[in-house]
Amino acid sequence: MKRLKVNLKERSYDVVIGHGALNSLSDIVKKLDIGRDAFIVATPIIKALYGSRVRKQLKKAGCSCFFRLIPDSEKAKSVSICINILNELAAYDTKKRIFIVALGGGVTGDLAGFIASVYRRGIPYIQIPTTLLSQVDSAVGGKVAIDLSVGKNLIGSFYQPRVVVSDISLLKSLPDSEIKNGLAEVVKYGLISDAEFFTYLEENYVNILKSKPEVLEHTILKCSKLKALVVEKDERDNKDIRIALNCGHTIGHAIEAAGGYSKYTHGEAVALGMVIEAGLACILKKLNPKVRTRLEVLLGAIGLPTRIEGVDLDNIMTAQEHDKKIISGVNRFVLPVKIGGVRVFDSIPTSKVRTALSERM
Amino acid sequence: MKRLKVNLKERSYDVVIGHGALNSLSDIVKKLDIGRDAFIVATPIIKALYGSRVRKQLKKAGCSCFFRLIPDSEKAKSVSICINILNELAAYDTKKRIFIVALGGGVTGDLAGFIASVYRRGIPYIQIPTTLLSQVDSAVGGKVAIDLSVGKNLIGSFYQPRVVVSDISLLKSLPDSEIKNGLAEVVKYGLISDAEFFTYLEENYVNILKSKPEVLEHTILKCSKLKALVVEKDERDNKDIRIALNCGHTIGHAIEAAGGYSKYTHGEAVALGMVIEAGLACILKKLNPKVRTRLEVLLGAIGLPTRIEGVDLDNIMTAQEHDKKIISGVNRFVLPVKIGGVRVFDSIPTSKVRTALSERM
Repeated sequence: MKRLKVNLKERSYDVVIGHGALNSLSDIVKKLDIGRDAFIVATPIIKALYGSRVRKQLKKAGCSCFFRLIPDSEKAKSVSICINILNELAAYDTKKRIFIVALGGGVTGDLAGFIASVYRRGIPYIQIPTTLLSQVDSAVGGKVAIDLSVGKNLIGSFYQPRVVVSDISLLKSLPDSEIKNGLAEVVKYGLISDAEFFTYLEENYVNILKSKPEVLEHTILKCSKLKALVVEKDERDNKDIRIALNCGHTIGHAIEAAGGYSKYTHGEAVALGMVIEAGLACILKKLNPKVRTRLEVLLGAIGLPTRIEGVDLDNIMTAQEHDKKIISGVNRFVLPVKIGGVRVFDSIPTSKVRTALSERM
Repeated sequence: MKRLKVNLKERSYDVVIGHGALNSLSDIVKKLDIGRDAFIVATPIIKALYGSRVRKQLKKAGCSCFFRLIPDSEKAKSVSICINILNELAAYDTKKRIFIVALGGGVTGDLAGFIASVYRRGIPYIQIPTTLLSQVDSAVGGKVAIDLSVGKNLIGSFYQPRVVVSDISLLKSLPDSEIKNGLAEVVKYGLISDAEFFTYLEENYVNILKSKPEVLEHTILKCSKLKALVVEKDERDNKDIRIALNCGHTIGHAIEAAGGYSKYTHGEAVALGMVIEAGLACILKKLNPKVRTRLEVLLGAIGLPTRIEGVDLDNIMTAQEHDKKIISGVNRFVLPVKIGGVRVFDSIPTSKVRTALSERM
């Protein structure tokens, strides 16, 4: 089992990574001394799979447990569900010693973390990510949010968990498509900040797809470390450092939105986003086309899409122009300039963005 | 005009205090460079009184203005109004250069500040407090919140404004009752942290009631300074320092709640709370009864109540036990131990709290 510290002064916390990490939950919660009443947010499937294990651990730590089930989709991040949960939390919170457990993937973590951030101006919460995507990405870093009808993640906070417990054995129950989904973000970490890790992925992606424990553990530890380094330098995303994590996401989000959030999964859209943004960097002569090819080959080998199908170019352009990363009416992209390095570009001509997209259609 | 800096590292900001301070709004906003589209939250009365002055200043700074009117009561802090405003904000925010202006009293500041804290994980906001209570207390320090039906301020954040503009000339339009309301908090600052200021208030309260500009300016500057000192040491209220500001509020909130939020104003309830908590400190032999008498005389002279009428003792006890300052089932009080000093007391026997209350009925 590995332990990684995210250094954020009084908001510092550990990420505990390993096969069977969940078996330490009781000791972890006892040591943290974060409360006695656990309000656990999870989907019905995740509760069925891991609910009793989590409950057993928390009981051992002397905590009461209440499971709050949420829908297994982005709909869980609606304002109405959030408000309902806040009211239930207030009703359950009779002894003022409550804490929240986000047991699930990115949607669960976002919703439960946001609730923790605003209830009584912030109560403790812990993340137990159950997908590869959330273990390598969303569980670490404290970005939490819910959706407005006009756009995703429009209401949110920067609010760090008290611990992240990434148990690799939980990934066994994931369908292959979910592993691939997570791998898109994994490749992103190599692309934006670690050439050696990118090479490791080229050599080991098959073992990740096969869920080989030591390769998974190395991968999740590596991504968590890379993310922690970025978050430590720019916790609130206002120093042009954390924005590097958006590589592939500007175009990726636009593809997701233009496809009505049903045509492509988040991971698939990010894979497409990275390939197209790499293409855009090539058009701007900021990236060697050989790098784009390496990226494309790796994503393709994993089984992620590298060409857009069934989504209209104009719709993607419109969605991209509404993206929240557009500041003061000027577009902003984080583009790869080499394997392991990105740069921020402002005001890229729309025509070049369009060309980069059409190359992949 | 006076300028006071609240030192909170990258979250530091100025409090600008003076007669006509609003006339500097244009320069202040330009210098801060916080955005170009002002989303101004205000009640209809406040908009009618100061809307055009604020609009003129913001236009001069090159900003567009949108006024969002809210009810003139605690109802404005409901979840449904908050969500409606967030949706309108998202619709108005087409160029991603929006900022929020809280133009009004404590309710306006709490609501508008909370919205600023969560919209896009936090956008800039400025406080223009228009009541004595908000100028001396709520506008400084970054505690913002809205209400759930089960309790006040249950959803909130710690989120600092980018500037506070306290224009003393705005207080001219306040009814006497509102000045008295604010004076309860003013007396609290003397009681908890500054014996000299307490004496100043004993000598000058009449001039405050008469809204004498130089006395008002001194008073608001002094209270803002005392609050800033506390907030600088304990921004997130987790070090047993900021809790000093709750002196008079544990009992005060219980009296407000037991009176259905209609029997006493916040200031009146805080005045009663201070007298009763001073009485409790006397019962515990932690305070010289002469100090309680000085406090009582000053509050009475101002015209604030020092005896409870028309609220049931049992209802107050019940409300007090539900107060959110009760931690892990143990009550917690901040009691005066001298003029200019308080201490935190845990687990005070219920019978003594009851005695302190009944002495004042």
